[in-house]
Amino acid sequence: MAGTDRTQESITEAGPGGAPAVILVDPQLGQNIGMVARAMLNCGLTELRLVRPRDGWPNERADTAASGALEVIEGVRLFDTTEAAIADLQWVYATTARPRGMVKPVVTPAQAAVELREAAAAGRKAGLLFGPERSGLVNDDIVLADAVLSVPLNPAFSSLNLAQAVLLVGHAWFMAADDTAPRKLELGAGQPASKAELVNFFNRLEAALDETKFLNPPEKRPNMVRNLRNLFHRIAPTEAEVNTLHGIVSALRGKFGQDR
Amino acid sequence: MAGTDRTQESITEAGPGGAPAVILVDPQLGQNIGMVARAMLNCGLTELRLVRPRDGWPNERADTAASGALEVIEGVRLFDTTEAAIADLQWVYATTARPRGMVKPVVTPAQAAVELREAAAAGRKAGLLFGPERSGLVNDDIVLADAVLSVPLNPAFSSLNLAQAVLLVGHAWFMAADDTAPRKLELGAGQPASKAELVNFFNRLEAALDETKFLNPPEKRPNMVRNLRNLFHRIAPTEAEVNTLHGIVSALRGKFGQDR
Repeated sequence: MAGTDRTQESITEAGPGGAPAVILVDPQLGQNIGMVARAMLNCGLTELRLVRPRDGWPNERADTAASGALEVIEGVRLFDTTEAAIADLQWVYATTARPRGMVKPVVTPAQAAVELREAAAAGRKAGLLFGPERSGLVNDDIVLADAVLSVPLNPAFSSLNLAQAVLLVGHAWFMAADDTAPRKLELGAGQPASKAELVNFFNRLEAALDETKFLNPPEKRPNMVRNLRNLFHRIAPTEAEVNTLHGIVSALRGKFGQDR
Repeated sequence: MAGTDRTQESITEAGPGGAPAVILVDPQLGQNIGMVARAMLNCGLTELRLVRPRDGWPNERADTAASGALEVIEGVRLFDTTEAAIADLQWVYATTARPRGMVKPVVTPAQAAVELREAAAAGRKAGLLFGPERSGLVNDDIVLADAVLSVPLNPAFSSLNLAQAVLLVGHAWFMAADDTAPRKLELGAGQPASKAELVNFFNRLEAALDETKFLNPPEKRPNMVRNLRNLFHRIAPTEAEVNTLHGIVSALRGKFGQDR
């Protein structure tokens, strides 16, 4: 039975950005299938195909473990053979923990992600094969794939559960098209202070410190001022935070509530 | 109790390559702690600190869920407060699912990985804070960190379980120092055929095809030969596979077992 209750069109639509299908071959525990569905949706993957799920389908434990990833669970398609499950695909990876001594290209998740994005951009439909929990894919399934996908892990402890393998591969795929800045300063509702506001604070602080003779002796003052300005500049404060700093100086001088 | 049965020295040693400590604040289920330990060791992280684990410590369910990541479980240290748990660290990330409206740097796992490797190279000890399963870190813990670490995920479905969050962050750290080739041809025990062996096969194939008039008419022959050579070159065969290809040509010509 290459059973389906969804047309080919709706399946193609289901993959946003040409997302690859995830194909689980001989999965055992329904709970693991559910956790796979959750990990998939975390990464924007929605198309799940099952080859001979041991405990049948639908599966209540899968529904529970999916933690709300229902659009994945409800779209599941069942197949009797791996060949049937990948028949419509043009580019397939077989995920394995270790090379099997075959002459076969082996790629990392990040490399597979790049290749999958290229395949999708060219209108090709792709898939990711995962084997059963304990044993992984059999060699006859691996030879059906264009390449082996292997997740680099601590070689002394490389056993991943099924959902974690799907998560790492899926997340590499997600990140390949994610444009989150690697590092940014989250400002909430605030705006960064202008340099004029900053320099105004610097002058204010230095005047207060001059009053208290903190910046003595005079020959050391230029360097001390430079260090202080660098120190406070590193805060990269918002406008509101510059006002807070002014308030702190006033307070420490015993003039809180008076003029700035 | 900043309880410990390990010296500061052994803790520093425990982090290969200056691996960051993982600090779980108010973790609830022992099973989740065990799965965190497993995910950590998958990624080469070994130092786990717990702040107020709800069900106490040691925890049998954690041991079971760790699936053999015993070096992590056995090295666990307990703390009463987040402050105590990070007291010896110089660089700390607070992992959160969503920005909290604080003025705070926010980094991706890959960026944190680069920064953590830099910190380790400079001899600095770093850590990764994770909050309890449902609610995540409280703001008073987040302000103790140098930056917020946020894993980009499908914004419509971004809830990760604790071990999966640790896995994605830990794996980014692992990959930042991993030198696996993004794509390579796994050859097993074989060696790639030399170009001489390949050209010898090309000549043999073309001679056989000339005999059968496959390469007629003559004016089209050069282009057909070029296409065939490209097609078979794409296999990038090993020495043994070139011999197999020779055998196939012989067999198809009805001369299997005779000379090549």
